Amino acid sequence: MEDKLEKIVSWAKRRGFIIPGSEIYGGIGGVYDFGPYGVALKNNIKKLWWQTFVSGRDDVVGMESAILMNRKVWQASGHEKGFVDELVECKKCHRRFKADDLSKEKCSSGGEHELTEPKAFNTMFKTDETYLRPETAQGMFTDFRQIAETSRQKIPFGIAQMGKSFRNEINTKDFLFRVREFEIAEIEYFVKPGDDEKSFDEWLKAWEDFVLNLGIKKENLEQYEHPKEGLAHYSKRTVDIQYKFPFGTKELAGVANRTDFDLKSHEEASGKDLKYFDEETKEKYWPYVIEPTMGIERLMLAIICDAFEELEARTETTEAKTENEIVLHFSPQLAPIKVAVLPLVKKLSEETKKIYQDLKTCWGDIEFDESGSIGRRYRRQDEIGTPYCVTFDFDSLEDKKVTVRDRDTMKQERIEISELKNFLFRKLNIS
Amino acid sequence: MEDKLEKIVSWAKRRGFIIPGSEIYGGIGGVYDFGPYGVALKNNIKKLWWQTFVSGRDDVVGMESAILMNRKVWQASGHEKGFVDELVECKKCHRRFKADDLSKEKCSSGGEHELTEPKAFNTMFKTDETYLRPETAQGMFTDFRQIAETSRQKIPFGIAQMGKSFRNEINTKDFLFRVREFEIAEIEYFVKPGDDEKSFDEWLKAWEDFVLNLGIKKENLEQYEHPKEGLAHYSKRTVDIQYKFPFGTKELAGVANRTDFDLKSHEEASGKDLKYFDEETKEKYWPYVIEPTMGIERLMLAIICDAFEELEARTETTEAKTENEIVLHFSPQLAPIKVAVLPLVKKLSEETKKIYQDLKTCWGDIEFDESGSIGRRYRRQDEIGTPYCVTFDFDSLEDKKVTVRDRDTMKQERIEISELKNFLFRKLNIS
Repeated sequence: MEDKLEKIVSWAKRRGFIIPGSEIYGGIGGVYDFGPYGVALKNNIKKLWWQTFVSGRDDVVGMESAILMNRKVWQASGHEKGFVDELVECKKCHRRFKADDLSKEKCSSGGEHELTEPKAFNTMFKTDETYLRPETAQGMFTDFRQIAETSRQKIPFGIAQMGKSFRNEINTKDFLFRVREFEIAEIEYFVKPGDDEKSFDEWLKAWEDFVLNLGIKKENLEQYEHPKEGLAHYSKRTVDIQYKFPFGTKELAGVANRTDFDLKSHEEASGKDLKYFDEETKEKYWPYVIEPTMGIERLMLAIICDAFEELEARTETTEAKTENEIVLHFSPQLAPIKVAVLPLVKKLSEETKKIYQDLKTCWGDIEFDESGSIGRRYRRQDEIGTPYCVTFDFDSLEDKKVTVRDRDTMKQERIEISELKNFLFRKLNIS
Repeated sequence: MEDKLEKIVSWAKRRGFIIPGSEIYGGIGGVYDFGPYGVALKNNIKKLWWQTFVSGRDDVVGMESAILMNRKVWQASGHEKGFVDELVECKKCHRRFKADDLSKEKCSSGGEHELTEPKAFNTMFKTDETYLRPETAQGMFTDFRQIAETSRQKIPFGIAQMGKSFRNEINTKDFLFRVREFEIAEIEYFVKPGDDEKSFDEWLKAWEDFVLNLGIKKENLEQYEHPKEGLAHYSKRTVDIQYKFPFGTKELAGVANRTDFDLKSHEEASGKDLKYFDEETKEKYWPYVIEPTMGIERLMLAIICDAFEELEARTETTEAKTENEIVLHFSPQLAPIKVAVLPLVKKLSEETKKIYQDLKTCWGDIEFDESGSIGRRYRRQDEIGTPYCVTFDFDSLEDKKVTVRDRDTMKQERIEISELKNFLFRKLNIS
């Protein structure tokens, strides 16, 4: 299974999805760049999230708070004191580890590691004046009153945002899973105390539905209920949605019941009233907060793991008849390229380009490719997860039809060029 | 004119467009948060930029490089040495200023400032290990070979990205104009040396066309050609697109001819070959780079300044007949809310909501509002720049028509409910 991750890392680099950050300078641990297909996949995930949870709902409004926040925010939130990992260092090889995560690493200077006592290591990145945020939640708490008033929402309602966050992880590993710079999508959903447990269940369901809707297989998901004694200091209940990654079953997303901890802490530390006034009941109170969160990079990695298949050569190419073939079974809405338009041979490029131009005005994510043999080009599109290839051949000049090839079934159909758009529109089921 | 900026700042906060960051803790200089309408406006600008320059073009591919880069990147790029401002400090009041920008500030301890000698102040934010990027360009240079190969683009072609950047400005000012955290949209367009001057002119035109297409008035734009002796060390030519802000005519966007400076510097420092191999001519060379850039927040501020109008009361409200009225003339594609759906009185809410739900499935950005008098609700929609209000009244129950009110002309038309979608579709001219 670890082998599968290696294959994915290599595929991601070869196809320009995910590249180690600053690679020409030897990289920078746990930081990745996204190439053209990678950023397209990532943006498709983000777009769908925003459509589902912000534009598509009446009770959630979007916002974007800054990465840099006044240091007092991190004091009041408890991060300055508590956002720590226990760090140990080997006295011989000087490598650093999380105390609870020593894996099976051998000391490079031979034998066993000789470890220092654990010490607390704050994993927020520090600048002269403050920290880089390790999550986006705090901005939604500090701006809560302002946003509640200007958006004229009534409880229950939520504030949502997506954005870059940073954690100076002691050990980065498992590709996109444990990184130091990442994007997180979070909602803080404010409810009346007493309504929190019901809302928690609703969000857990909405969260899992979203993950399934991305095309991730249900059998690869699991829920993990945090035991009462292991809960974070602010949480009444936390449930993770876990995914069966090749390196183990690990957290993909989660829902936490943060109670009124955050609004209360920020009111106490800032001296600003962060209570909500309920116009109907004339009560004033700190709402409880249900917080569903998911990491975009983890989601992306799960989607890739789920969609990735290596199989024996099924498409003949002159160059490599027997090489194994890789197919990415992305759902059409997530696929970086929706349709590839291919002339059978270069001679037919001019005619084929007309079809390409026409489709490109409908959906931006269309690719034209005239390089190499047709088999090789099919393989390439399978590898980047393009659901449909449209091929223009010599017959097309006469019968005004093209061949549409399905990535998953490899079935080929002849379709009238005049009907192509409607055909693809139905197949892709996206606008 | 400075007065106009004050009015805009106050409007932006009141309507939840732009809020000072960490406000409940006294803020954090030069950092802003975006509320629900602000993030919608910002996302609409970003979406249009990506559609125009990435999805809509065959010769530009997108990417997303990380904010954290190996420190060696900033050494090779010249930033570690050269990304400095001259800083002076007043020995009496201890305030810090840029040496060339002392404005007319009076010393708070009386009389004139007594200034220290200027010293170099690097404006990159520093972490223990590296810096926060002050621009996104370097990621497109360090990943150039990787992206050129995996995207199989041939010169001339461009790499585009948008992303957060940070500059530790000594004096932040003019609202969103000079901030410490911002988003920048940049293209690095790689051309054959010799083709650079022509490409420069094409990009300057494309850049200005884009700004005009956002709805910014031509008479508020100006080009500024940097004099040869004032060019940055890497630049052969730089032209700014300036906007007439209320606080002066200032840079909004720009195009620079960076020559082969960056690829060459990174090749020398990293030891990795960053040349391009031209398959047709069999030549190997460092391409020249034309770099069009624009700051998203500056663009947003220009759009707001351009769209902002304060005028004598034109809409009667019971509460405030004579108060001045604010109208934001956003173009439909940028407006945070496209259509507001309003029952004349609360009693009609149920019927009106059906229309709202129906429109919301077409365009997400629809608002329903049943609060207060109809005049007050029109005013509110004018203030957030909603192009059309749809009002359902008692006649609507009988004649199945609604009133559509145009924000700019205040003209009201009765439209068949069954025709409403088509009518708005034509008016908004967006999908």
